[in-house]
Amino acid sequence: MPSLRIYLAGPDVFLANAAAIFDAKRKLCADHGFVGVAPLDEHFDLSTLSKRDAALRISAHNEALIRSCNVLIANLTPFRGPSADVGTAYEMGFARALGLPVFAYSNVAGNLLERTRDHLGSRAKQRAAGGLEDADGMLIEDFERVDNLMLDGAVEAGGTQIIVTPTPADRRFVDLAGFEACLKLAARHFAS
Amino acid sequence: MPSLRIYLAGPDVFLANAAAIFDAKRKLCADHGFVGVAPLDEHFDLSTLSKRDAALRISAHNEALIRSCNVLIANLTPFRGPSADVGTAYEMGFARALGLPVFAYSNVAGNLLERTRDHLGSRAKQRAAGGLEDADGMLIEDFERVDNLMLDGAVEAGGTQIIVTPTPADRRFVDLAGFEACLKLAARHFAS
Repeated sequence: MPSLRIYLAGPDVFLANAAAIFDAKRKLCADHGFVGVAPLDEHFDLSTLSKRDAALRISAHNEALIRSCNVLIANLTPFRGPSADVGTAYEMGFARALGLPVFAYSNVAGNLLERTRDHLGSRAKQRAAGGLEDADGMLIEDFERVDNLMLDGAVEAGGTQIIVTPTPADRRFVDLAGFEACLKLAARHFAS
Repeated sequence: MPSLRIYLAGPDVFLANAAAIFDAKRKLCADHGFVGVAPLDEHFDLSTLSKRDAALRISAHNEALIRSCNVLIANLTPFRGPSADVGTAYEMGFARALGLPVFAYSNVAGNLLERTRDHLGSRAKQRAAGGLEDADGMLIEDFERVDNLMLDGAVEAGGTQIIVTPTPADRRFVDLAGFEACLKLAARHFAS
């Protein structure tokens, strides 16, 4: 049977050592019988393109890569705020609509409400009708989920949960324990 | 011909007056010959459910609503940071994988690089290999796009762009000029 392909979604692409992280992820995929597919997998010459055309090329390429995969594992570690990277969220939704099983991990503790409250500090306010809101009057979700309920829902619809592995701050974008836990869930999914 | 259905994705759901905003959006949809479909459209009794089960019910319902629609219009106004709401990004990816035309607007000026630089202030640093990075060493995308290239790509692949309408801060989550501009693009899409 040809190996199942896993799309490696996450803000890992923004790391200075992104290539090394994806090498490590691909190695772990292989250890569990999968082929890891990173957004950086196929290089093409972007140097002759405008920034706009380069962005479009990468976007179309990543969508095609997701279509070529059987599973998606998302790194939902909060990115520049209390929630995950929007590019990763987009790719999760894309995979889910295609029917791919979606697994996910975050290397930061706490649920969305707790993290958003910490992030906002005194700017979080009680709403008269109940619940907390931010300085813009936007409600802070309170479903005891790791992130926005659409992200948790994508994972939980498949019977698993977002794997949360509290990690020292300076290692939260590179620690792969949560990623490997997702690989184990994926292996179990296809074994059953 | 039955009216085409537009899924109304956005952080509007978190507003205290979300129902009124969605009423206004549905009215504008009708003015342009569409049916607006809001995440809040079908109420069900969540009071007997655990928070987890309520979240799952809403997530599954929203995915089913997107599948029932012909178009998605996303409100990508930055949400608690330099980027859009992750739930909205997820729903954009979901719609795009299904082949729905995706239109989007943001009520905040600037591209992702500019907004992230403003957000980070002195924490934005020059990377030796070129480009700017944040305090975690994560690169700040520099493609002159409104947000993460996957979001811009979803819209630009259809031949339009994210509509940016700089709006006074206290009206940025409720001003509907950008939304109406998207409706015009959608009408043109189906007329051609």
